[in-house]
Formats: sequence, C-alpha cells, structure tokens
Amino acid sequence: MLLKNHVFSVVGGDLRHAHLANSLADLGCKVFGLFFDLDAYISDSVIKTADMEKAFAESDVIILPLPTTLDNTTLNSSMSSEIIKLEELFSSIPCGTCVLGGMITPELSALGAKYGVVITDYFEREEFKILNAIPTAEGAVALAMEELPCTIFERPCAVIGCGRTGRAISRLLHSMGADVFTFARKQSDLAWIRSCGCHAVHLSALPLSADRFDLIINTAPAQLLCEEILTKLKRDCLVIDISSKPGGVDFETAKQLGIRTIWALSLPGKAAPLTAGEIIKDTVINIISELEQQHSSALC
Amino acid sequence: MLLKNHVFSVVGGDLRHAHLANSLADLGCKVFGLFFDLDAYISDSVIKTADMEKAFAESDVIILPLPTTLDNTTLNSSMSSEIIKLEELFSSIPCGTCVLGGMITPELSALGAKYGVVITDYFEREEFKILNAIPTAEGAVALAMEELPCTIFERPCAVIGCGRTGRAISRLLHSMGADVFTFARKQSDLAWIRSCGCHAVHLSALPLSADRFDLIINTAPAQLLCEEILTKLKRDCLVIDISSKPGGVDFETAKQLGIRTIWALSLPGKAAPLTAGEIIKDTVINIISELEQQHSSALC
Amino acid sequence: MLLKNHVFSVVGGDLRHAHLANSLADLGCKVFGLFFDLDAYISDSVIKTADMEKAFAESDVIILPLPTTLDNTTLNSSMSSEIIKLEELFSSIPCGTCVLGGMITPELSALGAKYGVVITDYFEREEFKILNAIPTAEGAVALAMEELPCTIFERPCAVIGCGRTGRAISRLLHSMGADVFTFARKQSDLAWIRSCGCHAVHLSALPLSADRFDLIINTAPAQLLCEEILTKLKRDCLVIDISSKPGGVDFETAKQLGIRTIWALSLPGKAAPLTAGEIIKDTVINIISELEQQHSSALC
Amino acid sequence: MLLKNHVFSVVGGDLRHAHLANSLADLGCKVFGLFFDLDAYISDSVIKTADMEKAFAESDVIILPLPTTLDNTTLNSSMSSEIIKLEELFSSIPCGTCVLGGMITPELSALGAKYGVVITDYFEREEFKILNAIPTAEGAVALAMEELPCTIFERPCAVIGCGRTGRAISRLLHSMGADVFTFARKQSDLAWIRSCGCHAVHLSALPLSADRFDLIINTAPAQLLCEEILTKLKRDCLVIDISSKPGGVDFETAKQLGIRTIWALSLPGKAAPLTAGEIIKDTVINIISELEQQHSSALC
Repeated sequence: MLLKNHVFSVVGGDLRHAHLANSLADLGCKVFGLFFDLDAYISDSVIKTADMEKAFAESDVIILPLPTTLDNTTLNSSMSSEIIKLEELFSSIPCGTCVLGGMITPELSALGAKYGVVITDYFEREEFKILNAIPTAEGAVALAMEELPCTIFERPCAVIGCGRTGRAISRLLHSMGADVFTFARKQSDLAWIRSCGCHAVHLSALPLSADRFDLIINTAPAQLLCEEILTKLKRDCLVIDISSKPGGVDFETAKQLGIRTIWALSLPGKAAPLTAGEIIKDTVINIISELEQQHSSALC
Repeated sequence: MLLKNHVFSVVGGDLRHAHLANSLADLGCKVFGLFFDLDAYISDSVIKTADMEKAFAESDVIILPLPTTLDNTTLNSSMSSEIIKLEELFSSIPCGTCVLGGMITPELSALGAKYGVVITDYFEREEFKILNAIPTAEGAVALAMEELPCTIFERPCAVIGCGRTGRAISRLLHSMGADVFTFARKQSDLAWIRSCGCHAVHLSALPLSADRFDLIINTAPAQLLCEEILTKLKRDCLVIDISSKPGGVDFETAKQLGIRTIWALSLPGKAAPLTAGEIIKDTVINIISELEQQHSSALC
Repeated sequence: MLLKNHVFSVVGGDLRHAHLANSLADLGCKVFGLFFDLDAYISDSVIKTADMEKAFAESDVIILPLPTTLDNTTLNSSMSSEIIKLEELFSSIPCGTCVLGGMITPELSALGAKYGVVITDYFEREEFKILNAIPTAEGAVALAMEELPCTIFERPCAVIGCGRTGRAISRLLHSMGADVFTFARKQSDLAWIRSCGCHAVHLSALPLSADRFDLIINTAPAQLLCEEILTKLKRDCLVIDISSKPGGVDFETAKQLGIRTIWALSLPGKAAPLTAGEIIKDTVINIISELEQQHSSALC
Repeated sequence: MLLKNHVFSVVGGDLRHAHLANSLADLGCKVFGLFFDLDAYISDSVIKTADMEKAFAESDVIILPLPTTLDNTTLNSSMSSEIIKLEELFSSIPCGTCVLGGMITPELSALGAKYGVVITDYFEREEFKILNAIPTAEGAVALAMEELPCTIFERPCAVIGCGRTGRAISRLLHSMGADVFTFARKQSDLAWIRSCGCHAVHLSALPLSADRFDLIINTAPAQLLCEEILTKLKRDCLVIDISSKPGGVDFETAKQLGIRTIWALSLPGKAAPLTAGEIIKDTVINIISELEQQHSSALC
C-alpha cells in the first residue's frame, strides 16, 4: 500500500481526531480537517475547511469521529460550534468513497444506507480494542494515583471484569507493584489472570473479600457494585467505574455511604488523546490496506 | 461441589498423571491409580491396582491420559509395561460414569461410542490451554538456557506464532530481559504482542530480520522455517521448534546448514510434570463442577 | 521489642505525620499528636494536645516532622496555625528521651545540643531513602500522566541521575512499558541501569539524544538541563525536575523557549502522604529497635 | 579512546576468555590469543601463539584469566595442556604494559611486584560484579528449571542473601512469576527487596518459614543452611548453593536427610561464557579508558 497516494477527510471529533489528521499529514498524505475550530491543535500541513462537498470530492477516505454520533442525527464534533446534520454529511459523500466511523449504531448504518454510504466501524476492530485498552488503563490508574493518599505499590486493588480493558488495567497495576485481585466468571478468564501474575478470583467471591481493597476498578457492564458490596468496602476505598452507561455502581447508595466513586468515561480521549489518535490511525491504515488487498485479489 | 465425595480412577499416562492421582488423593478423595508400575512416584494414599473392573465399578470419574492414545487402539501408558487395549478398557466402564480424556481423536470418540462411553476432552478446555502454555514456555526457555552460550538477558530472540504458547513464551523471554520479536499474521495478534512490550512483526517480514537472532522458537504449525529463512540465520542461532508433527522446520536443510535445531515436543510432561498434573487436576475439577451444576439445574 | 510499651509524641508536620500518629496508635501504642489543628486527619485513638510539657513528660519517643525545620528557628508544622519555637520545644524535652527528626541541619543539631537533646535523623537511614523513592517515583509519574497528551507506554523517556530516586523512576517507567533512557556518569550506575532493562547512557551523550524524548525527569542535583540541552528538546517535551533547590533546570531559558517545566518538590508528602507516613513509621520502629538492642548489649 | 589503536594479549583461561579475544578482534583490535589449544573456539582474526615474549612485546594490554591463578604459582588455563609458570609469564612482560587480571590474591600481587608488574583487578570493578550477577542468576535458575519437576511460575522460592547476586536471582525469579522470599539482615537490604516486589524477610525468621519452599538458593558466604534449617525443609525442596568455598550448606547433613543439594560454582563461565566474556570485555575497556583519561590529565 502506498499511503501517500491517499487523500483523507478527517471530520470532526475531539483532540484524538485532530491528532489523527496531523499524524496522517505527517506521513505525507493530503488531509482535509473539517470542523476543527480550535486551530491550535491542527498542524499547518492539514487543510482546514468546512466545505464538505469540496473536501469529500477530492478524498478517497473519510474518517468520522468516535463515537460518530451521540444522537443518531448530528455529528459528534466537540471541537466545533457548528451543528452538522448527518443527512447533510452523507449526501455530500460521492459514491464509492471509503467511509470509516466509530461505534456505528444500527440507526446510523440505516441512515448511511439511505444515501448509499457504507460505514466501516474501526471501533469494532480487535486490534483497536486491544491497543485502546492501554490509554484506558493508564487513564484509570492516573485517576487513582491522583485521588488516593497512598501509592499503587503494595496496595491491594480489585479489578472487576476480564475483557481487554480489565486485562490491561490488571497488568498495569501488577507491573506497578500493586497486589491485584481480578474478578471474573469464566474459568478461561481466571486462567488468563493467573498467567499474568494477578490473583484470579471468581466473581461469586467478591462479597467475601470486598473489605480488603484500597481501590476497586470496575470494567464489567453490569451493576455488580450493589449495596451488598458497597456496605462492605473500607471507608477510604476508592471506586472507579469505567463501564459505559448505565454503569456498574449503585451510585446513589455509594453516595449515601460516603464512598468516593468516579465514573470515568472516554478515558483514552481525555487521558491520552495523542496516543488514542495514533491508535485510530494505525487501525484505519490496517482497514485500508485490507480493502486494497481484497480489491487486488478481486481484480486477478 | 464436595470434591471429597468423588471417587476417581486415574488410568495410565506419565508422571503428570501420577502427580494428578497424588494430588486428588491429597484433597481427600478416594483415588485408584491404574497402570503405574513405578511405585516410587505414586503416593501411599493412592490405591494402586490393575483391576479395571473393580476400580471403575467404584469410581464416578475416570481420567484417561494425555494423549489418551497414540494409535487409536491402545492406551498411552508410558509408566506401565502392560499393553492396555482401549476396547477392553471401554468395556469395563459402567454406564453413566464420567470419563475424561485428553486429545480425543474422532476415531477414539467413535470407539468409545461403541461401548456407550462419552469422553470429555480436558485438553480442549480453554483454561487448560492457557495454563499449560506456562510449563511449555518454561520448558522451551530452559532448553534455550541449557544450549546457548549466552544469557537470555539482552539477546535478540524471535518467537513465531501468537497462540497461547507463543504468547507465554514471548512474555517469559521479555520478562527475563530478552529483546523479543514475535511474528504473527493477524493485526489483532500484533496488537496483543505490542501491548505485552514485545516487538510485533508481521510474518511477511521474517526473511528481512532472520539474521539478527540468537534464538528462534517456533510455535506455528506450518513449515515457516524453510530453506529461505534458514540460510539467513546466524551460524550460531539456536532453533527450537515446539509445533507438533510434522513440525515447523525444514530439519533436513537445517542439518545440512549446520544449524542447531531442537524439536521439543510434550514439554510440560518433561519439564514440569508436577505442575502439568496440577493443571489437569484444576481442569478436571472445573469440568466436574460444571457437569454437577448442569445436573442440578436439570433437576430443578 | 514490645512496641506497645512505648509512648510517642508526634509533633507537627503535614499529612504524613498525621498518618504516622494514627498508624502508631493503630499498633496499640499511646500516642500524643501535637499541633495538628485539622482534627479530620487525626484518628480518635491519638491524644490531641498542644501541651508539650505534659506530652513529653509521658513520652519516651518524640518524633519531629520532615523536614523538622525550614528556618532553623521554628518547627515546620503546616497543619497548625501556631508558631512553635524550637528553643521552647527543646527546653520541654526531659533528659534521656529518644528524639527523632528529619533532615537535621548542623544548626539544628547545635541548637538541640544546647538543651541536651540529641536528634537521630530518620531521613538519613538507607531503608528510608530506598522506600521513600517509591512514592516519589509514583508522584513524578502521576504528574507526567496528568500533563502529557500521550501514554507512558511505548514513549521515549529520559531519566537523569541514578540515585535511589532515579532508579525508582526508571524502573517504574520501564514497568509501564516506556522506552527508558537513564543518564548517569559512573560505570557501576550504568551497569545497574542495564541490569534493570533500561537503556544506560553516559551523561556526556545527553546533548546527542535530547531531541528524542517526550518526557525528561531530572533527579540530579546539578543544572544539567542548561540552554544547550533545552534548545534541543522537542517542542512538546515535558520536563519534570525533582531535584532540590536550586534545581536542575535553567527555568528562565526553558520559559523563554516555551518548554513545559514542572519543579516538583516534596512529592511523597503530596502524592502519597499515607504511604510516606508508613515509611517514616517503619523507619522509626527500626531505629528504636536498634537502640534497644544496643542498650541491652550494653547492659550485658 | 581509540580502541583500534590497542594491541591485546589474551592469556589463557576458559571459554569466556576465548570469547573475549574474539570480541576484541571483532572490534578491529590486533589480538594475540595465548594458550588456547582448542582452535575451534578462537576466531581466525585472533593471532594464536604460545610465544609470550613476542606477543607481549607488541601488546600494550595483557589480559589474564579469571581467576588468574588457582595456586598462586601457575596460570589458570583450562583450555591448554601446557603448565605456565607465573614467574615466567611476569618476566616476559615489558615494563609499562597495562596488565589486567581477575581475583588477584595478595600473593599474586607480591609476585607481580617482584617483576615490576602491577595487575589491575577487573573482578573488583563494581560494574563487572553487577553485570556478572546476571549470567550467575540465569545459570542458577536454569539449574533449578532442569532439576525441579514443577515450574518456577507460582512456586514459593527462597533466596538467601542480598548482595548483587542475591538481588539478580530474586528479580529473575520474581519476573518469572515465582513467589520470592528473600532473606537478609540489613534493613536497607530488606527495603531494597520490598522495592523489587519480593517478600523481604529478616534472616532470623528463616527457621520459621523454611518448610514452605520448593527451591532455596543460597548466595550468602556463611553456613546458614545448617541442620536446624535442613530438617525443616520439604522433602522435595531443591537447594542450590552458589556461595564460594566453604559453601553455605551443611552438605553432610543434607545428604543424610536425602535433600537434593547442588553446589554450583563459576556459573557465568559454565552457563553463559559468551556473555561472561563480553562483560569482561566491557569492563576492560572501561579500565583502559579511565587509565587513558588519567594519563591525559596528568600530561596537562
């Protein structure tokens, strides 16, 4: 693949996407940056514009933000004051353009289809999820370091859930010298946790050991930190929940009990937008590269 | 689950299964050990016998070795001089007994079915594979340490393949201070390798970097170390192949080129039979526990 | 040693000393806490008082803060609005009491001597310095995580100096997946750095590689980050200086060049006062224990 | 320093010194290799000779083996059948030649002085000891892996002593996932052990916990593994003693108790001669470099 031959439109989003645009331009590509009002974050080698028609006409790859939309109607574009209707956006995309987006909902897909636009979801790529777990983990641990009056080193910490993020957090805490207990349900997850040097504990044993932790980080998309558990926590335990809505903590009860709880969403974009932008870039390049290979194969 | 209520027959195998029998007995279970002629390795709390009929009549769980058979006809029982026909063995198993085996071939399944015996394969369990990768990795690295005139520390090492074993080896070498390059094809595998702190390289780049390594460990079940690669290796490079038959190295060419090559199979049983036996035990307990839960649910 | 038989006066200081008092009380000792106006941080099992005469009369060990004084005249007591004259304090200490302090200056020693008070410096204990380097390292890394728009993972970072703190920071960054270059002068330090898996670089090579780092943490007590180096840094490089006054960075020049610089002093007390208090406690117990052993030996 | 301008004589020794000679020749130096009968290990770029007079006349640096002598009379030269008298050797060295040796005894120094030869001891250099601890640690752990029927991973292991070697072994075992308990006497050593993530235990508590280990590695030069401890060990515990003569184990009692004991001396030369040779080379270069700097300073 000759990346330089590609022309990109990076459309809206946050600092991650600004870095994504800069990074593609640094690689020698022609890049249009749309709806980034805050010029400070966009390098001079990116062509800033709000003219979708013109930019899309020249681009062969359009990259939409992560998440692409919050309401299935308008573009999620936190660095612009403009409101961009998705219907308007889709109608500006020439047929045959490669369109990439993040966290594509069925509604969004349907809307795209109406305009002949097929959106490939980079958020669904396994390599994206694995790498994105790293800034997520660092973001969560940075929060813990900021809030806790003690070191991570030697402290008993619980991680709930053993998906990619739970694994990244467990390993990071372990590498920093914490005494990590990771809770999961599946025997294969528990085996994986053991192989990483952490204590693997079946989720059913959480009530038994909840009182020993200085830090609990929840990654599981279920309200596991319910009243039964919360009442057992140390008075000074910090709870960080990084599961998406509706969250894994009974926040109301936690508040009543005086337990410090942080619901930390979108950590990569907040804690390490530059790295998060690089991860989107790497994933986008993989997608384009595979599409081209499929295309070449089809031609043979 | 009340493990003590179970009676086990551990049938043949190698040191791993001797340790498995000892270990179950240590947990308070009644355990028959069949076809372990070398008494030295079997503890006194295991009931040694060669009388299958009697042992099986009393057992509710029968554990066959790993692999259960090498020829689909006789039991794989390296610690006994006796030849045990599988047909004879199956015909001795009372209906309804829980039978567990390892690396169950279709032929073996069919043979069991003839006698009404359904064999559950513990080798296919994900937690078994994850944990068994650890003694495999240690066995491979111990071989390398024995053979190489240099330390693992700071040496450039290649690991080919990113399955459970490739991952365990990569991490072990990395933790010992080696400069690890892991080769894989899938972007998700490459992302995982990066997240572990190793260099992730696409397999297609192996020819380009083959000349820099002091150690290459192959885990991929394909003859990737062909003449093209072998001719590029350093004269002193050590190649360890742990992929099962037919192996991942062109051994004939390697021999002609004077490259030291070790085809190391069945490492867990050789390098760490006690740990490997413990892993079988843990897996067997998980299987029994799940079967009991299913049974209880079915009864409700 | 029977710790419970001791009576302590913990005099002034910051949150670390509040935790120290709480922690000694938790071990079952009688503890007077002097000059902690903010009751919230002192547990109920500590006897709060401002009456030095009375507390000291009953105590056999008096623990002064870290640093004990900033001006050689008054006690360093950030949690109290009162100004406590050292002369007054020393004159209240009965002869023969064990007095421990931190960062004891020659002037302070002389002042103590005037009142017959010999102060043992817990800050000079090797185990204190080794353990205190851990909250220092975490504090510095937490600052970096907060300030940098990228992860620590995979980023090129420089650590200048290879004392206890430089080592702790190097290891922490390395364990988090950073690409760590540690600069030192002595061959033995460079060997140690290599043995930890970091890149060991002679300090004389700093100008040559200064342009590659995203983060530079200085621990050396000399102005090594002078104009020559600063002009070579990446525009976005973050410089954290944790060396004590006058600091290791030419801050004036850094400001002119627009380089983000943080001069972070007293990190353990700010980032992890609870852990820092525990470390003082462990050190104090070691000192008392050794004094008692000497005493017993002397009696024999 | 222009290393190429130097001419070296590498005199006798084992595989380490053969590698040392090869390695210096690879750097472009003229190198004489004396008393290496086994040509197979010496590269063609080294000038093999047994003519000391001629080689020394042309050399400005002479490197003697490690240890240089075992009997204070003859050269320690395991790769040669010849017996080389030290008096003969010293009398062949022109005045002013830089002579480096390893483990120089007072007797050897005195003998050298008789001939006007001053020997600098590379074995006494701190960087040598730190780096040499790494092949020592790998050698000890490789032995353990070979002998133990279990993995290093997750096993309780004891390391006695916290010098450079004890530290290297503790860290290596810890990084491989062992549960490491390191025993030492000094509080500063115990603090260092904790900071490495291992369990730090005072040596006085060894009798209390001796029964929990699968592996004990002794590095302390005192017979700490006496009958009292040995009788408490697990029947299957493996004891590796790497302390120099007279050793740290009561071998007679261990034998009677049936405890497997390995007294492993000179591990770097056996386990990783190539790396050990590189470490001598690095140290030798540091020494020469410093001598030159002193010389230049003296000239100014």
